[in-house]
Amino acid sequence: MASGPEPTPSRATIVDVATAAGVSRQTVSNAVNHPDRVAPGTLQRVHREIERLGFRPNAAAQQLRRRKTSAYGFELNPSGAGRVGHVLDRFLLELTVAAPAHGCHVVTFAPQPPNPMTGYERILTSGLVDGFILGDTVHGDPRPAWLLQHDVPFVTFGRIWDEPHMGRWVDVDGQAGMRLAVAHLLEQGYTSVAYLGYPAGSALGDDRRAGWLAGLADAGLADSARDAETVEDLTAATTAADRLLEGLGRDGAILCASDLLALGVLRAARNRDLQPGRDLGVVGFDDSDLAEVVQLTSVRQPLQEAAAEAWRIVHAKGTDLSLTALLTPTLAARQSSSRHPQSRGT
Amino acid sequence: MASGPEPTPSRATIVDVATAAGVSRQTVSNAVNHPDRVAPGTLQRVHREIERLGFRPNAAAQQLRRRKTSAYGFELNPSGAGRVGHVLDRFLLELTVAAPAHGCHVVTFAPQPPNPMTGYERILTSGLVDGFILGDTVHGDPRPAWLLQHDVPFVTFGRIWDEPHMGRWVDVDGQAGMRLAVAHLLEQGYTSVAYLGYPAGSALGDDRRAGWLAGLADAGLADSARDAETVEDLTAATTAADRLLEGLGRDGAILCASDLLALGVLRAARNRDLQPGRDLGVVGFDDSDLAEVVQLTSVRQPLQEAAAEAWRIVHAKGTDLSLTALLTPTLAARQSSSRHPQSRGT
Repeated sequence: MASGPEPTPSRATIVDVATAAGVSRQTVSNAVNHPDRVAPGTLQRVHREIERLGFRPNAAAQQLRRRKTSAYGFELNPSGAGRVGHVLDRFLLELTVAAPAHGCHVVTFAPQPPNPMTGYERILTSGLVDGFILGDTVHGDPRPAWLLQHDVPFVTFGRIWDEPHMGRWVDVDGQAGMRLAVAHLLEQGYTSVAYLGYPAGSALGDDRRAGWLAGLADAGLADSARDAETVEDLTAATTAADRLLEGLGRDGAILCASDLLALGVLRAARNRDLQPGRDLGVVGFDDSDLAEVVQLTSVRQPLQEAAAEAWRIVHAKGTDLSLTALLTPTLAARQSSSRHPQSRGT
Repeated sequence: MASGPEPTPSRATIVDVATAAGVSRQTVSNAVNHPDRVAPGTLQRVHREIERLGFRPNAAAQQLRRRKTSAYGFELNPSGAGRVGHVLDRFLLELTVAAPAHGCHVVTFAPQPPNPMTGYERILTSGLVDGFILGDTVHGDPRPAWLLQHDVPFVTFGRIWDEPHMGRWVDVDGQAGMRLAVAHLLEQGYTSVAYLGYPAGSALGDDRRAGWLAGLADAGLADSARDAETVEDLTAATTAADRLLEGLGRDGAILCASDLLALGVLRAARNRDLQPGRDLGVVGFDDSDLAEVVQLTSVRQPLQEAAAEAWRIVHAKGTDLSLTALLTPTLAARQSSSRHPQSRGT
C-alpha cells in the first residue's frame, strides 16, 4: 500500500469534546488530568469523544495516560489445564494483585498453534501490551530469544534453562525445596527417603531430583538412594509408588516431584493399610489445593514474592544476571509427614 | 483545577514520526493501517513515536485501532483461591481462548477492599477496558446495579439472583445438573439418593438442592429424601457424610453440592470399608481436577459455551431477558457411580 498524502483534518478543541460528550470543559480537563475525579461512565464517554475527534491533550496528560495503561501479556495454555495444582493460575492471581503497585495490568491471551509465537505477535500488534510475563519455561523454549530479537520487554517465571548466562527470570529453587523436605523428613524420625519423580530429561524434574540427592548427601545417606519414575498420571504414579513401598523399610519416607505423584503414594499406601504420617512419611511439591485437601505435606513456592520480582524485572533493561531472582521455597507441613508423639512407634 | 487555555502544539506529520522512529514513511503507514505487516519491535517503536509526537493518523486507522484493542476486565478474587475446583480459573481460560474470535482481550484485576467497586472504578479510569465480565454473582451483589448506573457494559457468569427480570447473564442450570445426576444414579441401579449440601441461604446451594428434590420427584422418590448439610470443608464434610452413610441403605447413593463435599463422602466411605461405585454411588459438582484425580463422577459445566455466550452478551445493549443464556450441564461419569457387571451384587 502506498503511504500517499496524509489527511490533514482540522484540530479538535476541548470545546468540541465537551460539546460532543455533553459535559463541561472542566470535566474534559479533569478526564484528562484527574480521571479519578470523574464518574467512570462520564469518563468513558469523554475519552470516546477525545479519541473520535482526535483531540490531543497536552504532553503531561499523555504521559499520565501512557503510564496508567501499561500492560503485560500473560499466556494461558489450555493444554496445561489438566495439571493438578495450577501453580500458574495462582501466579497469575498474585501478578494481578501486585499489578496496581507497579502501575501495571495483566492481559491474558491463549496460544495459537502451531507457531508458539503467533499469540505473542498478535497481541503485540494490537498495541495493548508493552511486554510479556512468561508463565513457565522449558528446554528449547523459543520465546525468550524471539522477544529479545524483537526488542520486547519480558520476564520469565522459570529459568531460561538453555541460556544459563541470561537474566530476565524469576524462579523458585526446586533443589533447595527438596533438600528442605529431606531434612524435615529425617527430623520427623523417618530413617530413609526414597524418591518418586519424572523420567530424566525435563528441566524441572531433573532439578528436583538433584535436590533430593543433595539432601541425602547432606545427611550422609546418599548410598541409600532408592527411586522410581513415572509420568504425571495418578494410576501410573500409584503403580510406581507401590513398587517403591515394596522395598521401603520401617520408618521410611517418599519424597515426590509433584503433589499428584504424592497422591499416588497415598493411594498405594492405603492399599497396603499403611497410614501416612504414622507408618510412612510423604511429601509432595507445589502445595496445590489438593495437598491441603488430603493433608499432604508439600513444598510451597513463594508466589507472592515471585510476582513482585517479576514486576521489578520486567521494567528493567538488559539481560544480565542481575535481572534474576531465585527464591527459596518453604514447606507446608501437614499430617502426611507428621509423627505425633502418641502415634510414634517404639 | 481550572481548565485554562489548552496548549496548541504544532501538528506532527508522518515524516516526523518516520524520522523519530528511524523507519520509512511506508513503515509508519503500515504500522497504522496494516500492523500485521510490521515486525512487532518496530511496530512498538513507531507507536511510541506516534504517541509521543501526538501524530494523528486518519479516522479509518483510528477505528481499526479502537476495534482491535477492545478489552474487558475480569476480577480475580484472592479470597476465592482456596476453593477446590477453580471453575473461575477455567472460565477465564475459556474466555481468553475465545477472545480473539470476538476481537477482544481480557484484563485481570483484583478487588481493593473494603469497597467492592473500587477495583472496577480504578481499571475503568485507566481507560484500558470497555466493560466487565463478572465471574460470579451472589445474593446482594452490588456490581450489576453499579455498572448499569454508570452505563458500563457487562455480563455476569451466574444469574443476577436478586433481579430475576434482568438479563445480561450466562449461567449453568444447576437444577438440571442435579436432576441429571439423580437419573444417572437410579439408572446405575442405586435405589435411593441422599444429598450432602450447603446450609440454606446461598443462591447456588439452594438451587442445587432444589434440583436434587426435583430429580427425586421425577422418579416418584420424593418421600425418601434424606440429606445433611455442611460448609465447604473436608473435615466437616467427612463428618456430615458419615452421618448420612449411617442410615444409607444397601444400594444407596449420595449426591453432593460440590466435588469437595463428595471427597468427604469418599473418605467417610473408605473409613467404613465401603468401595465407591460398588457399595455406594457418589456424585459431585463442578468436575474439578480433583474429580478426575479421584475418579469421582461429577456434574460438568459447559464453560466453553458459557464463554462464547458471555462474549456475545457483553457486546449487546439492554438488560432484557433476551440477554441471558441458561446452559445445561453434562455428567462426567466415572468410577464413583459406575456399577460394572463384575462388581454388581446379586
